[in-house]
Amino acid sequence: MPEGSSARWWGWGSASVRYDAERAERVVRYLRSRLGPEGPAFADPVAPPRSDEVDTPRLDTADLEALRSVVGTTGVSVDSVERVRHSFGRSLVDEIALRSRSFRPLADAVVTPSDPPQVERILRVAGARDLALVPWGAGSSVVGGVRADAGSHRAVVALSLERLDRLVALEPIDRLATFEAGIRGPELESALRDRGFTLGHFPQSFEHSTLGGWVVTRASGQASTRYGTAVDRVVGATLVTPRGVLRFRRPVHEASGPGAFGLLPGSEGIFGVLTEVTVHVEPVPASTEFRAALLPDWDSALATVRALATAAVLPSVLRVSDPEETELTLAARSPASGPGGRVKDRIGDAWVRRRRVAGDGPSLLVVSYDGDAVTVGRGLALFRDALRTVGGLSAGAAAGDEWHRDRFQLPYLREALLSAGWLVEPVETGTTWSRLAALRVALRTAVQRASESLGIRILVGCHASHPEPSGASLYATVLFPSQGPSSIGVWNEIKKRVTESIVTAGGSISHHHGVGVDHRPWVERGRSSLELSLLEMAKRELDPDDLLNPGKTLGAAGLRGRSGE
Amino acid sequence: MPEGSSARWWGWGSASVRYDAERAERVVRYLRSRLGPEGPAFADPVAPPRSDEVDTPRLDTADLEALRSVVGTTGVSVDSVERVRHSFGRSLVDEIALRSRSFRPLADAVVTPSDPPQVERILRVAGARDLALVPWGAGSSVVGGVRADAGSHRAVVALSLERLDRLVALEPIDRLATFEAGIRGPELESALRDRGFTLGHFPQSFEHSTLGGWVVTRASGQASTRYGTAVDRVVGATLVTPRGVLRFRRPVHEASGPGAFGLLPGSEGIFGVLTEVTVHVEPVPASTEFRAALLPDWDSALATVRALATAAVLPSVLRVSDPEETELTLAARSPASGPGGRVKDRIGDAWVRRRRVAGDGPSLLVVSYDGDAVTVGRGLALFRDALRTVGGLSAGAAAGDEWHRDRFQLPYLREALLSAGWLVEPVETGTTWSRLAALRVALRTAVQRASESLGIRILVGCHASHPEPSGASLYATVLFPSQGPSSIGVWNEIKKRVTESIVTAGGSISHHHGVGVDHRPWVERGRSSLELSLLEMAKRELDPDDLLNPGKTLGAAGLRGRSGE
Repeated sequence: MPEGSSARWWGWGSASVRYDAERAERVVRYLRSRLGPEGPAFADPVAPPRSDEVDTPRLDTADLEALRSVVGTTGVSVDSVERVRHSFGRSLVDEIALRSRSFRPLADAVVTPSDPPQVERILRVAGARDLALVPWGAGSSVVGGVRADAGSHRAVVALSLERLDRLVALEPIDRLATFEAGIRGPELESALRDRGFTLGHFPQSFEHSTLGGWVVTRASGQASTRYGTAVDRVVGATLVTPRGVLRFRRPVHEASGPGAFGLLPGSEGIFGVLTEVTVHVEPVPASTEFRAALLPDWDSALATVRALATAAVLPSVLRVSDPEETELTLAARSPASGPGGRVKDRIGDAWVRRRRVAGDGPSLLVVSYDGDAVTVGRGLALFRDALRTVGGLSAGAAAGDEWHRDRFQLPYLREALLSAGWLVEPVETGTTWSRLAALRVALRTAVQRASESLGIRILVGCHASHPEPSGASLYATVLFPSQGPSSIGVWNEIKKRVTESIVTAGGSISHHHGVGVDHRPWVERGRSSLELSLLEMAKRELDPDDLLNPGKTLGAAGLRGRSGE
Repeated sequence: MPEGSSARWWGWGSASVRYDAERAERVVRYLRSRLGPEGPAFADPVAPPRSDEVDTPRLDTADLEALRSVVGTTGVSVDSVERVRHSFGRSLVDEIALRSRSFRPLADAVVTPSDPPQVERILRVAGARDLALVPWGAGSSVVGGVRADAGSHRAVVALSLERLDRLVALEPIDRLATFEAGIRGPELESALRDRGFTLGHFPQSFEHSTLGGWVVTRASGQASTRYGTAVDRVVGATLVTPRGVLRFRRPVHEASGPGAFGLLPGSEGIFGVLTEVTVHVEPVPASTEFRAALLPDWDSALATVRALATAAVLPSVLRVSDPEETELTLAARSPASGPGGRVKDRIGDAWVRRRRVAGDGPSLLVVSYDGDAVTVGRGLALFRDALRTVGGLSAGAAAGDEWHRDRFQLPYLREALLSAGWLVEPVETGTTWSRLAALRVALRTAVQRASESLGIRILVGCHASHPEPSGASLYATVLFPSQGPSSIGVWNEIKKRVTESIVTAGGSISHHHGVGVDHRPWVERGRSSLELSLLEMAKRELDPDDLLNPGKTLGAAGLRGRSGE
């Protein structure tokens, strides 16, 4: 079921959910202690967007009639709130714009098909009437992936896949499930769990993102060490393109020539609208155990993560915070509970003293194992061995469980911080193990230099996560006082400098957030002109009029930009 | 190092290796007992191909000079044996042709570059002088993948990658190794093992096939349940195309837009020449254990394989023979040794009686586990549990070890059988678990009908192997008396009927042998015209003159054939 009116139009998630106020207040106090006073607050909006605040839809009666002829009257909306809700993602820039009541660019309408054939017909209407289409799953993009760019077209329509949310087929013997692509995490897992299965894909956006979005953005869930990325689990997909329906299969190991499946991952809607996906599923594990621990320093933290990610029993979740992020995390917890409290109770201030002396400090690790009891038991034993090897300190199961319980809540903290005059935004990248430590140094140095040249105190905490045998993600959370009206410009400058440092240090421009528009300036680096030509040809073949998501990722506008260089 | 003169020009593998004569004789006796007398023998050739037996090379002095200017005098050969050795694979049709001294079509020359830049230059020479190129790794294709088709060109040159056999780089921390693509299995594993690693890819052709060949044909090794397919382990590749060098990367989990990597797997040389490959490697396992067992019947065999392939500890090798193949396998072993002997010793004839009564019969399973001792121990315990569940009978470690020892020897048996008047050729396919039993029935029925309509007694034994969570390979070995000069026509008729039955039953046209020319008639089935258009465009972009491997898999000739339909 679509979230509809329960969704917060101006910020993350469900309107009824707020981040724990006491905990948010502790974070604010900590930020003050590290960075000084906050800046001008971006308050929670009180009133929804009014029609006089937004641009008049550039659709005429004939456009609306043509769209309604496909999806019915209720399937087309020009309501201001609906248009706003479907035109912005959840990046810091998006959130500041919405809280500042700046509603551009804005989709001229939202069209919501009820089944895949309606998607085909909408694409034909768009082609005939010169309308750009922006596929919209749940709007959680933090890289501008759902921005309502009309490209060279007369108007732009958000194509909401909210109603394509059905389980189409499940073959339990083969462990294959086919879903419509607009199904969100909770509904997908619920449908599977009723039948004893799980997909194992739990990104932080789980509650507010879709299967189709996961695949086209190359998403990774928090348990990717065991379950792989979203794409890893796909064996088939249906992409509705302006030139027809493309059914991909990546079947049971098969040596039957080349195929076009490789165009799908990372395509972010520029080649077609993903309507159905077939995925490998797994039985719901009999047992799941979370643990947390403190490791002496960042070097031992990375070594431990690498050892566990290549051990005989693979963890599901595995992540370790650097000393900065560890201190921030512990500061957020009440002294009497959670990993902060528990760890503090047990170790006194020995670890903190160590940080003061060494300039480094303890690193908080979270790990989970799932499967049958024997497997989980062995995983936990390997974990204890790894802790002993580096002199780590277990924070126990309750601390791990706490992370698990709160794992989808952190985006709500940003809402509270914005309202309190603090800005926060992640920068995430990935690389091989041999480059990971240097990548973090490069990233922190870039933040430090940006801080100096912009004259803004900035805090950056990192974690390594999603480890696999050859490397991991490095996820940096950047926090600084609101700069009022200059905030977006300041952030864009920081982001640019940090991304340049990442690219230079051999990191990817994104590990799991995708390209959207924010990473477009860097997406062509490392790709040969021949590879870009091939992608350009695919775009011309499948979407010759550039109807779909103009200007996103390697879409036509980007490729044209390249030719013009 | 190239095999060169140690290779058997007319048959499988090394000239110095022959299949155990006593065992071959037992197989022949068994075939006689089941199928009656053999047919006319195709004797081992005595003399190598003479220049008066082969077509005169269609290359003029200028062609040879141009090629020599790239690779030197020793890098170009028009020697008859070399031309023959590089123009035929190892399918039954190839072997009969060679034993019949029928040497067409034949490459006009063999050119052997020493490094990737020479490959680029050879492609330019080929374009300038209207020469088709057939990339040649080790010539083990059983689907016509190295057939010397000139397409629309003046002549055809076999491009041997034998000298591109170096380890380029190994990063032990990241577990990534880069090799030149022409390295064969033993040299690759030796280079890795010296450094403590393995690729884990052990196809039956291991000793006589190359890394590049594995990737472009989508090969699976015998240990694929644990190590995945060859493609699964690739993170980067360099493809030299007539339009330039295409460097693919599939880096550490990265969400950085679409890419062209998907064109590589299954491309079989039609888009470019694969010169370098970067692969994930793993530490050499501390321990490896093989086991064999007999399961009561085929249904319980399939259930057991599926259970083990989805268990908490994955086996490396896992395969089970159907009753026909089991009987053939046991017949080949001496009564006193091997799984046949051991099992017979232990069970008397109870199992054989069962087969007589039920029309079904015992199914021989081979499994291996590798890793640390705890993991292997748990795997073996799970295996014992699985055996108990279905009332299977362990044949112990020695029987498993025997399979392991002989696993690359079976192709030599065909040489012995051809010399004895018996023809043998595999047909392999794959499908999901829910279709696997019916696929075997369909395949056997097709063989039975072919047998009746052609008036030839045929034996077909199958095994299920390469299992993974959603399905497995079904590998059928077809045996029948030589039909003398009609043998190729008869086999082609059987192959056609069997493949039609496979496709109808939802099986793939190949699980791990590839498409080549033999599977071309079926390769476009199940692909939409849009997908074929995309592949056609890629071919036109990368190899506009159809220089590379004309007519193989989905190459230009095949695609043109489609347009003409």
